[in-house]
Amino acid sequence: MIPGPYLLYLGHSADPIGIKTSRGLATFRPDDCVGEFRYDDCPLTLGLKRLTIAEGASAGSRTLVLGIANSGGTMGADLIADAVAALEAGMNVAAGLHQRLRDVPRLVALARERGLSLFDVRDPPADLMVGTGYPRAGRRLLTVGTDCSVGKMYATLALTTALRARGIAADFRATGQTGILIAGGGIPVDAVVADFISGAIEQLAPARADDGWDVIEGQGSLFHPSFAGVSTGLLHGAQAEAIVLCHEPGRAHMRGLPGRTLPELAECLAMNLQVARLTSPSVRAVGVCLNTSALDAVAARALCERTEDVLGLPCTDPIAFGVESIIDALYAPHA
Amino acid sequence: MIPGPYLLYLGHSADPIGIKTSRGLATFRPDDCVGEFRYDDCPLTLGLKRLTIAEGASAGSRTLVLGIANSGGTMGADLIADAVAALEAGMNVAAGLHQRLRDVPRLVALARERGLSLFDVRDPPADLMVGTGYPRAGRRLLTVGTDCSVGKMYATLALTTALRARGIAADFRATGQTGILIAGGGIPVDAVVADFISGAIEQLAPARADDGWDVIEGQGSLFHPSFAGVSTGLLHGAQAEAIVLCHEPGRAHMRGLPGRTLPELAECLAMNLQVARLTSPSVRAVGVCLNTSALDAVAARALCERTEDVLGLPCTDPIAFGVESIIDALYAPHA
Repeated sequence: MIPGPYLLYLGHSADPIGIKTSRGLATFRPDDCVGEFRYDDCPLTLGLKRLTIAEGASAGSRTLVLGIANSGGTMGADLIADAVAALEAGMNVAAGLHQRLRDVPRLVALARERGLSLFDVRDPPADLMVGTGYPRAGRRLLTVGTDCSVGKMYATLALTTALRARGIAADFRATGQTGILIAGGGIPVDAVVADFISGAIEQLAPARADDGWDVIEGQGSLFHPSFAGVSTGLLHGAQAEAIVLCHEPGRAHMRGLPGRTLPELAECLAMNLQVARLTSPSVRAVGVCLNTSALDAVAARALCERTEDVLGLPCTDPIAFGVESIIDALYAPHA
Repeated sequence: MIPGPYLLYLGHSADPIGIKTSRGLATFRPDDCVGEFRYDDCPLTLGLKRLTIAEGASAGSRTLVLGIANSGGTMGADLIADAVAALEAGMNVAAGLHQRLRDVPRLVALARERGLSLFDVRDPPADLMVGTGYPRAGRRLLTVGTDCSVGKMYATLALTTALRARGIAADFRATGQTGILIAGGGIPVDAVVADFISGAIEQLAPARADDGWDVIEGQGSLFHPSFAGVSTGLLHGAQAEAIVLCHEPGRAHMRGLPGRTLPELAECLAMNLQVARLTSPSVRAVGVCLNTSALDAVAARALCERTEDVLGLPCTDPIAFGVESIIDALYAPHA
C-alpha cells in the first residue's frame, strides 16, 4: 500500500484530462490529500491548498503522487527533477506512467539513500496467464466508452456505491492507474503484455459465488485506433453480463487524435455487445452514463432524456443525477 | 543477427503446432539448419538429421534455437538444462518465449563466462509509440485467421514471394517469433505492452512511396478469447488495403481451448473487415488460404473450390497450390 496522505502533482499540466489521476484522488479520497503542487503556468486546480513540495512534506504528506497522464506515458526531465525534490523533502513518490520510476537510476539511488519508496502503479502482476474465455461463476458489469477518459472510472465507482447502498455485495475492479490508486489495488490492463490482456481481467475478476457483483472499470474504446486492442481483450476477459456505455457529449475528437470523430452511441453500443458476446453470449446493455459537466442542469437532463429515447436505455450523469435508474435496469426482468 | 547455422530444438514436444518455430526455420531456411535435437519420447521430426547437442556443435551449429512455443510462454527446468548444455558445448541460444533467457541468472552467467550470446526473439523494441490510425502512404496486405497457428505466416511468406516473382516490390513484415527468426527482423506484437499494439505495427510497416507492398503477418484471431486484443490492434495498426483470411479445415477447437469451436469463414471475414475499417475504410478481402495438409490433393482442391463459391473469393492452399489467384485478385479492377 502507498503511504498517505498525498501531495497531488499537477506540475505544468494544462490539459484537464491529463490530470485525471490527481483529480480522481482529490475527488474520491479527499481525506488522504494534503494539497496540490503546481507551477505558475498551470491553469488547473483541484480546489486543494496549493503547496510547494517542502510545504507538502511539512503538512504531513508522505507521498508525492505524480498523478498526471500523457499519451505514451513518458517522464520528462521536469517530472524527474520534481520527484528528486520530493525524495529530498522526505516523501515517497508514486506514479502511473508507462515509464517507470524504478528505471530512473537517480531516483532509485536517492530513494535507497533516504529510506524511501518509489511506487510504479502501472506495474502489472508478474504471474499473469493467458485468458480462456471459459464460463465462470459470478455477476460482472463492465463500463465501456466511446473514447478514452469519458468517465468510465467515475461511472464504475458510482455503480459500485449504488449497489452497496442497496445492500448488494459489489466490488470495484480497477484497471487503470487512477482507479488503482483510489481502490488500493487492481491491474493496469494497458500495461500488461499484449498476450495477457483478457487473462489479466479473468484474474482481476475471478469466479465468485456470493451473488455479488464485480464492477469492472473499462479502458479506451473499440473505436480508438491507439487502444482498441486493450478494450477488446478487456471485453473478452470481463465476460460481463451487463455493460454500461460511457460518453462525454461535445467532445470534438477522439482523445489525442485531432480529426478523428467519435462514434455514434448506437454504433458503439452495438459493436461492444458484438465483441462481448464471444465470451458472454447473453450480455446486455443496461444503461448509458454521460459526463455532462460542461452543460447546465437543464440541458444535461434534456440530453439524458433524448438519449434514453434514442437508445431505449436509462441514461444519466452519474455525478449529477446518480445511477439508480441503471441499477433498476440491472435488476429489472428482461428477455 | 543470430549467428547460424542452427540446431533446432524439439525436446520432449508432442504437439505438432507447438514446434512451429523450429519447423518454420527448417522449411524456409533449410540451408541454415544442421539438424534437430529431440528426446526419445518426442514423436515429431522436421526431417532433419537427429543430433545430440554435442553433435550439433561439432557439425558447426553456432546457435541452439529453442523453437518451441507453449501457451503462456514459460520455460521449464528441462528447457533451461538443455540451454545450459548448449552453452557448455559452445553454442549461443535463441528463444522466443515470453519468459526471457536473460532472466535466468544461470544462463546469463554461463553465457558471459563462455563469451556466448542469448537471443530473446520476443523482445519488443523499447521505443514504441502509441498508434494514431492516421492515413499513411503505401500498400499493405494483412493476413488474418480463424484461429492461431492456421498458416498465416506461411501465407504471408508465399504472398511476398509471389509478388516479388512478378517484379513487384514486397516486404514480409514479421510479427511473431518464427517469422522474425526467418526474416531476421520484425516486432513480436504479442509481447508488446498492450497500449502499443497498433503503434508497433505502424512502426513495423511505416509509410512507403515505391508502390510496393508491406505484407504483414497476422496473429491470433478476433474470435480467440485469449488473443483477440492483439489481433484487433494489429488490424488497426496495419491499416491494410487488403486482407487474406487463413484457416485450417477440420480443426476440432480453437487453439488451446477444447470446447470452443472455430467461427464460420464468412462471419470471421465480415468481422475482420468491420474492425479493419476503423483505420482503413476501403479495406477489402482478396482471398482465402487454407492449410489442407491433412487432406489428399483431390479433397483439398474440392474444398478450395467450394470455399471460393461460398465466399466469392479466390481460395487456395499456399503450399500446395500457390497464391497466384490471390495476387490476380489483388490487382484486378474492383469497385
